[in-house]
Amino acid sequence: VPAQVSLRDALDESQRSDSVAADVAIVWRPPAAFFREQPRLRLVFNLGAGVDALLALPTLPRHVPLLRLQDAGMAGALAEYVLAAVLHAYRGLDVYARQQAAGQWQPRTPPPRGQWPVGVLGLGALGGAIARALHAHGFAVRGFARSAHAIDGVDCRAGGARDVHGEFGRFLDGLQALVSVLPLTADNAGVLDAAAWTRVARGAHVINVGRGQHIVEADLLAALDAGQLGGATLDVFAVEPLPADHPFWRHPRVRLTPHVSALTPMQPAVEQIAARLAAWRRGEPLTGVVDFSRGY
Amino acid sequence: VPAQVSLRDALDESQRSDSVAADVAIVWRPPAAFFREQPRLRLVFNLGAGVDALLALPTLPRHVPLLRLQDAGMAGALAEYVLAAVLHAYRGLDVYARQQAAGQWQPRTPPPRGQWPVGVLGLGALGGAIARALHAHGFAVRGFARSAHAIDGVDCRAGGARDVHGEFGRFLDGLQALVSVLPLTADNAGVLDAAAWTRVARGAHVINVGRGQHIVEADLLAALDAGQLGGATLDVFAVEPLPADHPFWRHPRVRLTPHVSALTPMQPAVEQIAARLAAWRRGEPLTGVVDFSRGY
Repeated sequence: VPAQVSLRDALDESQRSDSVAADVAIVWRPPAAFFREQPRLRLVFNLGAGVDALLALPTLPRHVPLLRLQDAGMAGALAEYVLAAVLHAYRGLDVYARQQAAGQWQPRTPPPRGQWPVGVLGLGALGGAIARALHAHGFAVRGFARSAHAIDGVDCRAGGARDVHGEFGRFLDGLQALVSVLPLTADNAGVLDAAAWTRVARGAHVINVGRGQHIVEADLLAALDAGQLGGATLDVFAVEPLPADHPFWRHPRVRLTPHVSALTPMQPAVEQIAARLAAWRRGEPLTGVVDFSRGY
Repeated sequence: VPAQVSLRDALDESQRSDSVAADVAIVWRPPAAFFREQPRLRLVFNLGAGVDALLALPTLPRHVPLLRLQDAGMAGALAEYVLAAVLHAYRGLDVYARQQAAGQWQPRTPPPRGQWPVGVLGLGALGGAIARALHAHGFAVRGFARSAHAIDGVDCRAGGARDVHGEFGRFLDGLQALVSVLPLTADNAGVLDAAAWTRVARGAHVINVGRGQHIVEADLLAALDAGQLGGATLDVFAVEPLPADHPFWRHPRVRLTPHVSALTPMQPAVEQIAARLAAWRRGEPLTGVVDFSRGY
C-alpha cells in the first residue's frame, strides 16, 4: 500500500528525528511505544477503516478520541473488488477455468440475477456501498449487521452473528455468495464456522474482505473439500502476510490476494483528514469516532 | 445456449413433421436445405445478433428481409461478461493468481481508472452497451467503428479497421484493454494481427466477444509469448467448439469460455420477435434489417 507505506515511513522518520509532543497523531500500525512517547495527544486518526490492531495495543490512550478513515475512496475500490469476485462466481468463470484445464467445452446458463441471492455481512459505509453496487447489478441482495440498517432494494436484517438458528441463519439461508466486510471485534471472531456453512446454498462462494479472524479456517477448508462451498475469494487473513506453509496458498478452490481489496488512495485520505482536522479545530462535532466498547 | 437450442430443436421438429410453406421463419443456424424447402418466405428472423454464418449460406434468399435480434437481454449479459474480464485485468487478478501459485505475497496498486484506457471495437447496440458500462465504472473508454457514433463520455472514432497508421492506430495507442465485439464481415476478418498489437500498451489484455475470425491466432500467441500482450479472455473462436488440440486450451495467458458471453435469454427474445412481427403485420417500417452489402 504505497500511500500507507509512505505515510508510515514519514512517521518512522519523525519518531527517529525528534521527540516533539504532538497534539494530533495520524497513524497506521504504529509500534506500541509510540503512544508512550506521545503523552499529550488530543486526537488520533487511523489511516484505515479497521482499528482492531490499534485497539489491541495496551498503550493506546482510551481518553483520546480515535477517528477512523471514512470511505475516502476505499468504498469504491472495495465494491469493485467484490463485484469482480461475485461476477466471477455468478458467471461460472471458476468452473470454466477448470473446464479449460480439462479441455472441456461445456456452456452453462446462469440463473437470472434476481434469483441468485448475495449476502453482505457488515453494513457500515463499506458494506453499504458493496450492497448498493450488487443491487445495481441486479442481484438479490441481503444485508446483515448488528444494528438495523435501511438500504434501498436490499433486504436488511439485524441481530447477533452467532445465532445461526435465528435471524443470522435466515440471512444465510440459500445464499449463493456471502461477502464479509465485518469489522473485527471481541464478539465476532470465528463467526463464519461450520454451522454457518450449513445454511448457505450448496456450492456457494465466500468472499472475505473484512478480517481473516472472522473465518474458522479449518471449517472453511472442510466445507470447500466437501463441496458445501464452491469457492472462496480471500483478501484478508488472520496472519498477514499469509505464512508460506498455509494450505490456502495451494487449495484449488481458494483464490487469494494480498490484502489489496480496498487500497486507500493517498489523495482522498489526506483531504479527508485535513477537512476533519479543520472541523475539529473549529470546535465542530467529530464524526467517525471509534466506540471503544463496540470496537469499531 | 438452452434458449437457442430449444428453439432450434423446435425448428428441427417442425422441419421433420411437415412441409408447410411458411411466410416467416425464425432461425438459428438452419441447415442450407431449409431455405430451399421454404420458397415462400417473406421475412426471416435470426435468433442472435451475428448473422455471418447465415450470410454464408448460398441458399439464403437475398430478396427477403433478414432481421437480427437487437439486444433482447444480450447487451446486459455481454457488458457484464466484459466488465468481469476488464476488472480482472485492471485489479491484477491474473497477476495475483500467478503469485498465489508461486507462494508470493506482493500487493500492487492499480493506477486510477481514468488513466487506464479501455477500447471497444464495434459500437452497435452491444458495443455501445459495453462502452457505457465501462465508462460508468470510471474507465477511460475509447470506441471505434466503421461509422461515426456519439456516446456520452466515450472517445468515439471511426474509420477502416486495417489502418493501423491512421485513426484505427490512434484508437489502439496505449490501450490497457481492448474489447472486440465486431460483427464478422468480409472486410474485417483478421483485423487483430501483429500490427495491431504493436500499438496497444505493453502487457495489454485482449477480450474477444465478437467472432474468432477477427483474431490472427498465430499473432496473438506470439504477442502473448513475447509479453507484448499480458493476457487474453476469449469467448469466441474461428472453429467452435474449439478443437481439442488447439494451443489456446493450455496457454497460461489465455482464459477461455465456450461462447457464453451473451447467452440470449428466451423470454426477451420471444417478446422482441413477437413485437417486431406484429409491427411488420401492421405495415410499420422494419428495424434491425441486415444490410447484405455491409454484412450486418
